[in-house]
Amino acid sequence: MDIDISKVSERLNLEEDILRSAIERRVISLCKYRDIRYIVFKKKVRHVERGTVLFLNENMDVVMGYPKIRRALVLDPTVKKYFVDKVVVEEKLNGYNVRVVKIDGNVLGITRGGRVCPFTTKKLLKLLDTEILKDYPGITLCGEMVGLNNPYVSHYYPEVDREICEGIRENLGLFIFDIREGSNSLPVEKRIELLEAYRVPHVKPLGVFKKEEVEEIKSIVLKLDREGREGIVMKDPDMLVDPIKYTTHYTHCQDLSVAFRYTFDLGIHFMFSRLVREGYQSYEFKEGEEELEKRAHSIGRSIIYSMVESIWKVARGELITEDFELYFENEEDLEEFLKYLKEVHISYVLKEKEVLKNSIFRVVIGKVYPSTRDKIKSYLEGSLW
Amino acid sequence: MDIDISKVSERLNLEEDILRSAIERRVISLCKYRDIRYIVFKKKVRHVERGTVLFLNENMDVVMGYPKIRRALVLDPTVKKYFVDKVVVEEKLNGYNVRVVKIDGNVLGITRGGRVCPFTTKKLLKLLDTEILKDYPGITLCGEMVGLNNPYVSHYYPEVDREICEGIRENLGLFIFDIREGSNSLPVEKRIELLEAYRVPHVKPLGVFKKEEVEEIKSIVLKLDREGREGIVMKDPDMLVDPIKYTTHYTHCQDLSVAFRYTFDLGIHFMFSRLVREGYQSYEFKEGEEELEKRAHSIGRSIIYSMVESIWKVARGELITEDFELYFENEEDLEEFLKYLKEVHISYVLKEKEVLKNSIFRVVIGKVYPSTRDKIKSYLEGSLW
Repeated sequence: MDIDISKVSERLNLEEDILRSAIERRVISLCKYRDIRYIVFKKKVRHVERGTVLFLNENMDVVMGYPKIRRALVLDPTVKKYFVDKVVVEEKLNGYNVRVVKIDGNVLGITRGGRVCPFTTKKLLKLLDTEILKDYPGITLCGEMVGLNNPYVSHYYPEVDREICEGIRENLGLFIFDIREGSNSLPVEKRIELLEAYRVPHVKPLGVFKKEEVEEIKSIVLKLDREGREGIVMKDPDMLVDPIKYTTHYTHCQDLSVAFRYTFDLGIHFMFSRLVREGYQSYEFKEGEEELEKRAHSIGRSIIYSMVESIWKVARGELITEDFELYFENEEDLEEFLKYLKEVHISYVLKEKEVLKNSIFRVVIGKVYPSTRDKIKSYLEGSLW
Repeated sequence: MDIDISKVSERLNLEEDILRSAIERRVISLCKYRDIRYIVFKKKVRHVERGTVLFLNENMDVVMGYPKIRRALVLDPTVKKYFVDKVVVEEKLNGYNVRVVKIDGNVLGITRGGRVCPFTTKKLLKLLDTEILKDYPGITLCGEMVGLNNPYVSHYYPEVDREICEGIRENLGLFIFDIREGSNSLPVEKRIELLEAYRVPHVKPLGVFKKEEVEEIKSIVLKLDREGREGIVMKDPDMLVDPIKYTTHYTHCQDLSVAFRYTFDLGIHFMFSRLVREGYQSYEFKEGEEELEKRAHSIGRSIIYSMVESIWKVARGELITEDFELYFENEEDLEEFLKYLKEVHISYVLKEKEVLKNSIFRVVIGKVYPSTRDKIKSYLEGSLW
């Protein structure tokens, strides 16, 4: 690989041997977006987080991986024990994590895994004013890309519905929830001030509480659940401790549906964790018979309906895919994105493709879940477990 | 270890090196029941099945491990494809697997894992006439020990309810379902004839079908489900192919309850497999809206109620145990069994102990699930996931 090991080693404070071994084990890979070359850490290597990107430019700019946010299984006493004094509660959005940076004059959108995604990169220029990156070139804007029309996590958010051209509506938005410099986050108030000054769409606090006011936080969770929203992220106002998260019953059930639709691809840890969250939530909210029955029913439904539907699909000879409807400004953008999907080894089928007005392309891509299809097929044909 | 490697090697047709390595890795262990010394294969080693026992006596008698019975996820077309011509359907009982052998004049009960269990060994002498082993000393009687009052799988079977002493009832029975010589099984008819001749309680066929008659087999499954029974084992009449099994909705839900009661001990593969079985069953029985709703509800209930109950228990400071009520003929038998539990590293608490008439001891032992208790406790105290 065409990397100057000694320079990278110095830049990241990682020994050359460790770097070399990580490259050999393909934990580090060399990637390219147009003429921008960079390396990605696909797993954590010593102190370097998964998803960290090092650009192979003059400066050797580094964008740290976005850290995993840990989870409370019960709000009480976790919030009281964990936080210092006050807690800022923000909404957790159900989309995909994006880091926005400016490298050598180019604004780029980097996924959680550490790839410059052409879809994200192009869309974010439409979705936010990037002037802030002119004035603060060293920062990373961390946000959630949400909405129906993205290629990773498709979930409708009414607030991001907009007309991109007469009669053509796209459901897509990007909300910044963190500004980082290296691995430090700006204090919440400072971040919000800055984002407001630059008119950057951002996640707004749902409330600031004393850490003892857990009941208020629980009410927020119940409200979000009724509205079909994902959950909350709780932060120390000065970011002195890492944020922690908590999610709604609604989202656990949504996740279970997805997990059982792609039964043999999504992994049993994914589903087990959702079920466990439900147990603690039911306990924490001191549910009685009636609420338990409701919860039981919706858990069971989330599991059985999507699993049986996938079995029926395979029985009828259909593919098991997760479909995403996307809009592109022109054919080159579409082609570039499809090439990117191949590079990152996402296997998909192009299900629909049409040109709308102003040469806008509307496509539906189906992400293929090969294990689910193959295993279901094999069991239906009589294979033994 | 005090084992004659070269003799064992010859007896089992396993190279000495492989034996030595298995002993070092503790895949083979040396055990003792009274003055009977034997070695156990705790995992499969080459052609030697898990649970195989070799007695360190003159003959070096070997009892082969009882093979795992594979599972059909759908009866149709699996049964049609798998069997040769006819299929004997037997009931699958929900208990624990026991191999009964006679070694140097002693009738012994060996568990699936390959240990001579003192509880089982003593009980089986009460439960079956062992004259058959006098006339056929080389055979292994393979059966299921069932009922409430055993230390491994406690499930009530009305047909094994009996009075062991005036006013004292024990729910325990042993049903033989296979007679093996080495690793060969007797044909079904021959086995039943022999067991009937010797008045040995055994699993009776629920029917013999042409392999195309899958609908009849499905009806049996539905009937067993309504009766709250586990499922079926299907066999070739001449045992030309290995038996396969299929289980009821009732038993999947029971299993899920157990899995989520001991949330962090039973393992996620256990629960995932039960959920998957439900999906295929619902598909195979072509369930409509109403049946799907019922299935969803009972799956959800099995998951959430037992999990929440365990969380509440830990919150109240109670132990998470699985309780077994057992009867012993005298205190020595009880002591011997408790010693055995320690040897096989089953951690338990003695919850109740009382002497009834005729010096019969009634005890309740609680099998301890340490991970479930520790993890639930830790999350309730605010640990992050």
